[in-house]
Amino acid sequence: MISERQCIDLIRQFSGSRDKEFLVRGIGDDCAVLKKDDADCLLLTTDTLVEGVHFDLAWHPPHLLGRKSAAVNLSDIAAMGGRPTACLLSIAFPDGVPSWFAEFMAGFSEVLREFDTLLVGGDTVRGRNDIVVTVTLIGEVKKATVCYRSGAQPGDLVWVSGPLGNGAAGLELCRKGLQKSYETATDLQQLVKAHLDPEPLVRLGAVLAASGLVHAMMDISDGLATDLAHLCKESGVGAEVRQDLLPVYEPLRLAAAALGANVLDWVLRGGEDYQLLFTSKAADENKLRRLAAEQSDRKIVAIGKIVEGQGVFLCRENERRDISYQGFDHFRG
Amino acid sequence: MISERQCIDLIRQFSGSRDKEFLVRGIGDDCAVLKKDDADCLLLTTDTLVEGVHFDLAWHPPHLLGRKSAAVNLSDIAAMGGRPTACLLSIAFPDGVPSWFAEFMAGFSEVLREFDTLLVGGDTVRGRNDIVVTVTLIGEVKKATVCYRSGAQPGDLVWVSGPLGNGAAGLELCRKGLQKSYETATDLQQLVKAHLDPEPLVRLGAVLAASGLVHAMMDISDGLATDLAHLCKESGVGAEVRQDLLPVYEPLRLAAAALGANVLDWVLRGGEDYQLLFTSKAADENKLRRLAAEQSDRKIVAIGKIVEGQGVFLCRENERRDISYQGFDHFRG
Repeated sequence: MISERQCIDLIRQFSGSRDKEFLVRGIGDDCAVLKKDDADCLLLTTDTLVEGVHFDLAWHPPHLLGRKSAAVNLSDIAAMGGRPTACLLSIAFPDGVPSWFAEFMAGFSEVLREFDTLLVGGDTVRGRNDIVVTVTLIGEVKKATVCYRSGAQPGDLVWVSGPLGNGAAGLELCRKGLQKSYETATDLQQLVKAHLDPEPLVRLGAVLAASGLVHAMMDISDGLATDLAHLCKESGVGAEVRQDLLPVYEPLRLAAAALGANVLDWVLRGGEDYQLLFTSKAADENKLRRLAAEQSDRKIVAIGKIVEGQGVFLCRENERRDISYQGFDHFRG
Repeated sequence: MISERQCIDLIRQFSGSRDKEFLVRGIGDDCAVLKKDDADCLLLTTDTLVEGVHFDLAWHPPHLLGRKSAAVNLSDIAAMGGRPTACLLSIAFPDGVPSWFAEFMAGFSEVLREFDTLLVGGDTVRGRNDIVVTVTLIGEVKKATVCYRSGAQPGDLVWVSGPLGNGAAGLELCRKGLQKSYETATDLQQLVKAHLDPEPLVRLGAVLAASGLVHAMMDISDGLATDLAHLCKESGVGAEVRQDLLPVYEPLRLAAAALGANVLDWVLRGGEDYQLLFTSKAADENKLRRLAAEQSDRKIVAIGKIVEGQGVFLCRENERRDISYQGFDHFRG
């Protein structure tokens, strides 16, 4: 057995260097970036969802699972500031293709249509035990505006695009059999939706990238503590997050109280938020806030700042605690 | 449960039409073909290999499994006459990343290097029960020379790039525990190699496409009877294959005799040959044969002809038997 770190090092070791003129950015960002022509780059990303690990059919309606399978990949394109163009779908089914696959495809293609993305290739193969969905997305982005994880600078503001922890809370509600609240008009509805049917922030990502004001960007899929640590590592900087600035959707507190869960745990360590995490000069704070509100109807939130050094620290009054990588681990679930 | 046919229709129904200027060819060929610029197209293909269905670690050394995972996808690029450029790898491991993953990566990247293809993105995720390997390849091809399945014309010769059935025989040898012959210098070595370490015919595919003499092309992954039926259906034609012309590697007969298997079954219905299947005008027979020999060191074999109508027929003396789609079915194994 080798660790996740060793594993990533191994993949990097065998992956392309920058020798090739057409490889702009390889392993280590939300998408691979290839040169298309002098002005444009191609974006490539792939994600695998495994039944029982990344989704559970006991509570995930096939239509929403189809939507989510597209959305989580679109989120990677959003994180680079790109525009999705085309998509490949590959699914392994252990016992033949179930009839609900029609609903899955309807949801999947619905989201692709919303973002003007074409399904250009699809395949089903025989699985053994588990249903496994793999989606590959291709997109485009102006070479001049593409946002990487690696551009954060000391003094930058750290931003998130909206409330954190909703996906984790929604998962917990589903696990407890409370997902039906999704169909009723309760306050918990948005939490369950965040898990079952997350929204990829493609428009916001493109607006932020086009502004030229964003230094570094990624999406939050493994929790803020882990993903901000990734961003910091790629940028060679550290970060301080102020606990009092973390955006929390009010019903999340109700859900935490009802389920005996810890709000801060969900907010810092919950996976699958699919919010955008980005940095900018402090001087651009108001400009960026206005841009996001006007062009993408989003209220973005500054939660801290980039500092010299390394590590991600949570600050509260006089406390300053290292929370780097304390998040969702794909191998612990 | 829905049939494989219904499933493909479903995927097609939701997939992109030709409306989009940039989609040259979607579902239904070895790769999706997207417009890159006025002269060139992008090729996209993805394939999923499931442990226990598409490979068995009991006899598949990790190094060769890595090689094969790259090769089967490169074969799809070869089938369009393309040049592979970049690759994404996604693997699900149920119990953390095993130490043999290093050997897998060495084999995988070895084959990519042979074909000047860069690994630009890679990811491991937690699986539940099975190891699942998904590879996505991107390639390029001149718009003027790309080969589709759909161009076959009545009167065309039907060609294959080499002996058939070796992959199926190799699998059977492995299942019977005879794979060690791979390491000794026996006649069976090539059969086991055909299963464990198939060669993607990228160079031959490019030579054939560039010649401008090939009307339709695909690779043989599900057996001749099934894949030729696909090619005929896409072209709106039928085919007659002459049994006496089918190329058989001599040791295949020995293996069939030893294992009590049927040679013709392996040749017509065996999956995973990864030979190229293509058609050309009969008048170009010698030109094409010479080209393949000189520029790719391959002895290509004409096995029959394209006819009006539909169906794939095996002809022997006065017999003419419909063998359409009698091959490897991904859902029957």
